[in-house]
Amino acid sequence: MPRLTEYKDMNPRAKAVVDDIARRRDIDPADINNVWKALARHPTMMERFAEEMKAAFAPGKLDPLTKELVYLAVSIANQCDYCIASHGTMARAKGMTDEMHEEFMAVVLAAQKGNKLAVAYRVPVDTAFEET
Amino acid sequence: MPRLTEYKDMNPRAKAVVDDIARRRDIDPADINNVWKALARHPTMMERFAEEMKAAFAPGKLDPLTKELVYLAVSIANQCDYCIASHGTMARAKGMTDEMHEEFMAVVLAAQKGNKLAVAYRVPVDTAFEET
Amino acid sequence: MPRLTEYKDMNPRAKAVVDDIARRRDIDPADINNVWKALARHPTMMERFAEEMKAAFAPGKLDPLTKELVYLAVSIANQCDYCIASHGTMARAKGMTDEMHEEFMAVVLAAQKGNKLAVAYRVPVDTAFEET
Amino acid sequence: MPRLTEYKDMNPRAKAVVDDIARRRDIDPADINNVWKALARHPTMMERFAEEMKAAFAPGKLDPLTKELVYLAVSIANQCDYCIASHGTMARAKGMTDEMHEEFMAVVLAAQKGNKLAVAYRVPVDTAFEET
Amino acid sequence: MPRLTEYKDMNPRAKAVVDDIARRRDIDPADINNVWKALARHPTMMERFAEEMKAAFAPGKLDPLTKELVYLAVSIANQCDYCIASHGTMARAKGMTDEMHEEFMAVVLAAQKGNKLAVAYRVPVDTAFEET
Amino acid sequence: MPRLTEYKDMNPRAKAVVDDIARRRDIDPADINNVWKALARHPTMMERFAEEMKAAFAPGKLDPLTKELVYLAVSIANQCDYCIASHGTMARAKGMTDEMHEEFMAVVLAAQKGNKLAVAYRVPVDTAFEET
Repeated sequence: MPRLTEYKDMNPRAKAVVDDIARRRDIDPADINNVWKALARHPTMMERFAEEMKAAFAPGKLDPLTKELVYLAVSIANQCDYCIASHGTMARAKGMTDEMHEEFMAVVLAAQKGNKLAVAYRVPVDTAFEET
Repeated sequence: MPRLTEYKDMNPRAKAVVDDIARRRDIDPADINNVWKALARHPTMMERFAEEMKAAFAPGKLDPLTKELVYLAVSIANQCDYCIASHGTMARAKGMTDEMHEEFMAVVLAAQKGNKLAVAYRVPVDTAFEET
Repeated sequence: MPRLTEYKDMNPRAKAVVDDIARRRDIDPADINNVWKALARHPTMMERFAEEMKAAFAPGKLDPLTKELVYLAVSIANQCDYCIASHGTMARAKGMTDEMHEEFMAVVLAAQKGNKLAVAYRVPVDTAFEET
Repeated sequence: MPRLTEYKDMNPRAKAVVDDIARRRDIDPADINNVWKALARHPTMMERFAEEMKAAFAPGKLDPLTKELVYLAVSIANQCDYCIASHGTMARAKGMTDEMHEEFMAVVLAAQKGNKLAVAYRVPVDTAFEET
Repeated sequence: MPRLTEYKDMNPRAKAVVDDIARRRDIDPADINNVWKALARHPTMMERFAEEMKAAFAPGKLDPLTKELVYLAVSIANQCDYCIASHGTMARAKGMTDEMHEEFMAVVLAAQKGNKLAVAYRVPVDTAFEET
Repeated sequence: MPRLTEYKDMNPRAKAVVDDIARRRDIDPADINNVWKALARHPTMMERFAEEMKAAFAPGKLDPLTKELVYLAVSIANQCDYCIASHGTMARAKGMTDEMHEEFMAVVLAAQKGNKLAVAYRVPVDTAFEET
């Protein structure tokens, strides 16, 4: 199933998606990441995911690195190896230093612990939080 | 099991943890969140979690709101209701506007989709990501 | 959907399952836990789960409390509120003291952290572990 | 990212952590597990996790094998491959026989089924469990 | 945070989404489900999710009930209480009988067990499956 | 731990399980999937899982492909690589076309998004769903 389609062998719709990503990232379309090579046989899915990613990472009130860190945090919580590898690399490309990574991991691990403590001790939601 | 201990009934070690949090947040110790009331009967666990949270949220290279968003992202991925309610409130207190929340949610949902796509299509990790 | 069927209104197959559990636990069938009241309308599922539970908790090499703790650990990892509440109570009935609960939670939280560290840093399995 | 640092190349803080583990396990520091080689570049995280593990597995009311089984149960529920491989090996080293492993797996699978049944049929928590 | 906006108080974009759903389901817009009342304050998110749901449930090669069951299966695996309650109801509306529900649950539970067995015994993927 | 036992080396109880599966699938017992080779050393577990799978996939009101898709949906939600690879192959064998796979994935992804939206916005269950 994980058959990867190289750029040169993609159908026109898949090529269009890759061209757009390659242009924005300023890379050669042939060097596109595996996730797009895997999606190339599913053009509708591919177009929809590409659009959603573009919208999610469009310039806005949150800076690009914050968005990468949020994406990476979800990927660690979900234990998605591909996503941790790819977005870890992207976070570094967007400015994450070793020191920031260390702080980021500390928050992720504190969140994991907090999540399990709240669940294991069956903590009821504070009235103050319900009202917001 | 979810017996909550009010501040006035806590043992000295639990009180010390709550006093420290209340001082830093500038609130009345009696108004401490339920998670601490639930942990009060487990002083060792409570002290260790309080320390870990303090270290994770200590001033550093990542700003306080970014850290809250990372914590919230993990909590949504893990589906921890208490954690979403409490850290959602804290994120707002630290400056998250409706617009930022919308952008944040867009990244969380894109990550969820990306995670499941990578897993479902069994995408192999790119060599470029392995080498970093 | 969470319609609970009281013992007196159960069909004969469901009653037989409850009778067997009540006899082994030495309780009144009318006081059976909600999970069995919820399963009463699904007799095949109910019989199969009752059998699996009976087999899992049958006397063996692991003592009853160890088995409860393993069950509880899975339930916390899976964040199943009903399961944490019911098997937490059962663990206490089988001898779990506050001190043991504290130690148990320390291992559960260390495991959570270890799990996320291994995943986040993408740690490869040691050859020594592969050979076992 | 999964760059592993061998013992001889570690910084002093990482070496100190490994020395302590190697001494307690009576092994050569060069044979330390990959998880510590992966953490070696993150000394603060490494020290904190090492302390948490040491505290969790310190002699107490629960015997060492029970603790390993709880750790393994969490790792199976969380589907952490590295953790299952390493703590499966450790559980065997601490006395888990094939027969005990079989009983352990039976409880883990029963817990998985119980968790999903409780969630799928939306079983409400019994009043008796709330009061504990 | 779970502030629900009633139909009459929604902004025009949210109203348009609800009108479209109500028309297709032939219900009064005022009786729309809570998930849409919760999303009403986030029009972009709401429009995008409504579109994704519409596309996913559009007539195609898989019949409507099969799609509901797939949705429900994911929701049980993810332990999403709201989703189990709402899509359980929808599956019944689309023809799921008690007997079909029983068969469905048997497959869901078998999948849960199969998943954990494959993970716990660290089963390598068969070459035959890799080649597809 | 992932020691696989080939058919010719299996004990009589494991062989009986494999013979039964091979007969129903009309394959050579030597070509049995890895999951059964991994379970061969655990005959009780193996027999019980084989029975549960047989019962779950027995002819009934839901057609065989629908059952495969439900199994696959759970496996994707749980991120079980082996299960996705094996049941993806089986779904194709039972008639899943590329077009159906595309529709299936669209529902799985919509469910993922719906699950996280319901959880993140803390949507309360509609009274109408509670009453069913």
